[in-house]
Amino acid sequence: MQATDKTYTVLSGGGGGAKFALGLDQVLAEGQLQVIANTGDDFEHLGLKICPDIDTLMYTLAGIADPDTGWGLRDESWQFMESLERLGGETWFRLGDRDLATHVRRKELLASGSTLTEVTAELCRSMSVRASILPMSDDPVSTQIHTTEGVLPFQEYFVHLQTEPTATGFDYAGCDSAHAAPGVLAALGHDSLAAIFIAPSNPWLSIDPILSLGDIKSTIINARVPVIAVSPIVAGKAIKGPTAKLMKETGLDPSVTSIAGHYGDLIDGLIIDEQDAGLQGAIEDTGLQVGITQTVMKSHEDKAALAAFAIDFAISLGGNKK
Amino acid sequence: MQATDKTYTVLSGGGGGAKFALGLDQVLAEGQLQVIANTGDDFEHLGLKICPDIDTLMYTLAGIADPDTGWGLRDESWQFMESLERLGGETWFRLGDRDLATHVRRKELLASGSTLTEVTAELCRSMSVRASILPMSDDPVSTQIHTTEGVLPFQEYFVHLQTEPTATGFDYAGCDSAHAAPGVLAALGHDSLAAIFIAPSNPWLSIDPILSLGDIKSTIINARVPVIAVSPIVAGKAIKGPTAKLMKETGLDPSVTSIAGHYGDLIDGLIIDEQDAGLQGAIEDTGLQVGITQTVMKSHEDKAALAAFAIDFAISLGGNKK
Repeated sequence: MQATDKTYTVLSGGGGGAKFALGLDQVLAEGQLQVIANTGDDFEHLGLKICPDIDTLMYTLAGIADPDTGWGLRDESWQFMESLERLGGETWFRLGDRDLATHVRRKELLASGSTLTEVTAELCRSMSVRASILPMSDDPVSTQIHTTEGVLPFQEYFVHLQTEPTATGFDYAGCDSAHAAPGVLAALGHDSLAAIFIAPSNPWLSIDPILSLGDIKSTIINARVPVIAVSPIVAGKAIKGPTAKLMKETGLDPSVTSIAGHYGDLIDGLIIDEQDAGLQGAIEDTGLQVGITQTVMKSHEDKAALAAFAIDFAISLGGNKK
Repeated sequence: MQATDKTYTVLSGGGGGAKFALGLDQVLAEGQLQVIANTGDDFEHLGLKICPDIDTLMYTLAGIADPDTGWGLRDESWQFMESLERLGGETWFRLGDRDLATHVRRKELLASGSTLTEVTAELCRSMSVRASILPMSDDPVSTQIHTTEGVLPFQEYFVHLQTEPTATGFDYAGCDSAHAAPGVLAALGHDSLAAIFIAPSNPWLSIDPILSLGDIKSTIINARVPVIAVSPIVAGKAIKGPTAKLMKETGLDPSVTSIAGHYGDLIDGLIIDEQDAGLQGAIEDTGLQVGITQTVMKSHEDKAALAAFAIDFAISLGGNKK
């Protein structure tokens, strides 16, 4: 157990990011963990407001996530989806009966005038999520994937087309006029803050949308605490999702050194997997500290161990901030 | 089986009206039945568009309605509702997982620019409903119940407050600027039309909203075919719902004679139950023809028998139109 007077803030998407956040939640006490969630994937679908990364984070931290899919709820039922299919509705985005309540409730609260930050806090309370989950922004920012088949909104690319088109680049529509949501800058600059983590999420699809907000990026650049990323690439591959594929398509070697190069000066340290230990020197040559551990999170114990390692690594870097 | 070159149009709410429509659908051939549905109960709830009477008519005519409740679907599941309750959402209006698909799909189609008439036709096709179900109007008309506790929208009165407040009157907000939906006036005036039926629905809550539209009412008044109502009151009581209670509260004796008096000159004949045979003379004295049969619909056979009786009664009145 860590000192409970310190707080930790993690930038995260869903998937691997949510697993890392769960590990942190396990080893930290109540009030210590703040998660800044990517909202670049958010979209309106069937008249509902869907926030895939916030949902995965909430469900994961509430202990009700489906352990197999990486999204949605455990023990979900699909009566709604089957009926919608019979009625000729769009079914490419799978919405379980229980999951649907989240989107309907969110839409209802937003329609009544609440902000996404307020709605997320309310949903987290209802689900007994202990950590603070903060949407990166209450303003719309939409991740767009430039592909050889044209510019695609995130869900179209990721879910509908199953990441099949070849990517050529990314942009985050709306980021120039969007601001960090209330609480986000404080979470990155509070006196109690001990470290900022960048979760092992997809850098281009989950983390860069957060960093596309100028006020968030500059607050991180000026942070007086260590900024530590956990590599989403292990032995040249992504645990799940299209990170490695996207890197190759955009001309990058899918390696931890490329991840180090991508985050560059923004971070002070990078945690890589034992399988990539041979690349430690190359990364250290770029001026980054390197932490090496088992980063593949299968069990609860794996998640807690990685989180504890990340916290210890951050503390060890405390006096070594660039 | 009736001659299949004739058509029949019925004005209907949900509940008893849907049962009567199902009876007509059983004894008529494809293309013979048109149902003009009350939309005065329609409302927006949880961001969805809910049309209770259209839904009950569709589900009943598709053979998938819950036989016990009078609304909703058979073999329904409630995962969504239970989850919404945990999230603090409004649960006074019960939405089953499968039923929800209807409302989401409707909302989606309306948002894409389709009219309620077009959406209803599309939903009916998906559910293999054989009859034409026509919303009375594509314009908003909202039934308001004046009560000793103030003016209440329909669902607030009917579902949320369970018809508890004492009614003093009714109005149909929007009816002055609303028009009959496409197809409705044709259904009431087509050359093939043999009769117009008013289903045994609540006259004030289900039928008068339809008649509140000036173009519908004048078309019925000028109809060259018999207009036949089926009494929703049997032996001083309503089979289901607040009809008798509302009549007492607004100073009417809950009897078939009061129903005859309410519809008055608009109809040519009234079908009453055998239990009310003693009131035949009093109704005939007002200038109406009276049909007497078993009107309580429990089985499919009851429904078909009442429908066949109503058609025969209409044919017998064909030459006796006021």
